[in-house]
Amino acid sequence: MPHITVEEGVPGIRSLVLFRPETGKPLYQLAQALLRGPSSIPEAERELIAAYVSSLNNCAFCCMSHAAASRELYGDKREVVDCVIHDGQAEVSKKLRALLQIAAKVAESGKSVLPEHIENARNQGATDMEIHDTVLIAAAFCMYNRYVDGLASFTPTDPEVYREMGVRLAANGYVSPQNSNV
Amino acid sequence: MPHITVEEGVPGIRSLVLFRPETGKPLYQLAQALLRGPSSIPEAERELIAAYVSSLNNCAFCCMSHAAASRELYGDKREVVDCVIHDGQAEVSKKLRALLQIAAKVAESGKSVLPEHIENARNQGATDMEIHDTVLIAAAFCMYNRYVDGLASFTPTDPEVYREMGVRLAANGYVSPQNSNV
Repeated sequence: MPHITVEEGVPGIRSLVLFRPETGKPLYQLAQALLRGPSSIPEAERELIAAYVSSLNNCAFCCMSHAAASRELYGDKREVVDCVIHDGQAEVSKKLRALLQIAAKVAESGKSVLPEHIENARNQGATDMEIHDTVLIAAAFCMYNRYVDGLASFTPTDPEVYREMGVRLAANGYVSPQNSNV
Repeated sequence: MPHITVEEGVPGIRSLVLFRPETGKPLYQLAQALLRGPSSIPEAERELIAAYVSSLNNCAFCCMSHAAASRELYGDKREVVDCVIHDGQAEVSKKLRALLQIAAKVAESGKSVLPEHIENARNQGATDMEIHDTVLIAAAFCMYNRYVDGLASFTPTDPEVYREMGVRLAANGYVSPQNSNV
């Protein structure tokens, strides 16, 4: 049961944003900029970084919803998502592997990101902007995960709920619930 | 030295927001809504929660700047800030103490916030909205701290820099650097 009184049956962050739209608006705008805005990191990979950090933080709601979005965006290569989340390994590019390593360090602490992790990513072709975006996606999910779990918001268990959520997130991005009928 | 090439001498998050204004805008809007928007938690206490979480995350830049803002807002009672940050104890209300405990749990993990912590805050008069805002301020600083340190952004060491920053933040709130001359 959620720690505060929110609309019943509304899952995860959506229930919290309906409770407090003033903070919900920039939270959704940040997710949209990070995960759907212009970037040389493909959307499928950005969603994968989000799902991976959420799995490290044991946040089931964020992990399952962003993994579902990533699977939709990967299309035929969707099996990559579960490989990364379940054992941190998969047939991904060396660059993405280096970015995932940086994301895991951010989840520990900002100070855990060392020059050698950055250099490794750079050696695999990562740009300053890609390193920036990876660090901020990982940091942002350290916030979203704590927000969702710190208030014990409703976490559906039916995989079909997440599959549908993934389809919606892949198609529409992050639209604050007070601006949508979804 | 910062991990990516940002404007030299610009401290902390400001350098990162100048590097990537698209994500900087919602980051500043979130800080403004959380720390200066309408709330029954006084601004001085919200800044203190931010500084306290930043100290737990060992983020010197965020801790020193938000502690400075909190001192300005506390005015005559500014000694409270250092007591809370340095030993977690101070002559604060039982309600604020309970909210600081929740914030510390959020810094560990969202799942560390237990019904007993919420009940304790409620018994001291905390409302759903105050509990919500405390959890989100703490979660947001788990992001800002990781963003600032994960990219090794410039952290001034001169206390006078933070004192001036505190005066400015207390007076003007959170204005994205691309919208100001500060």
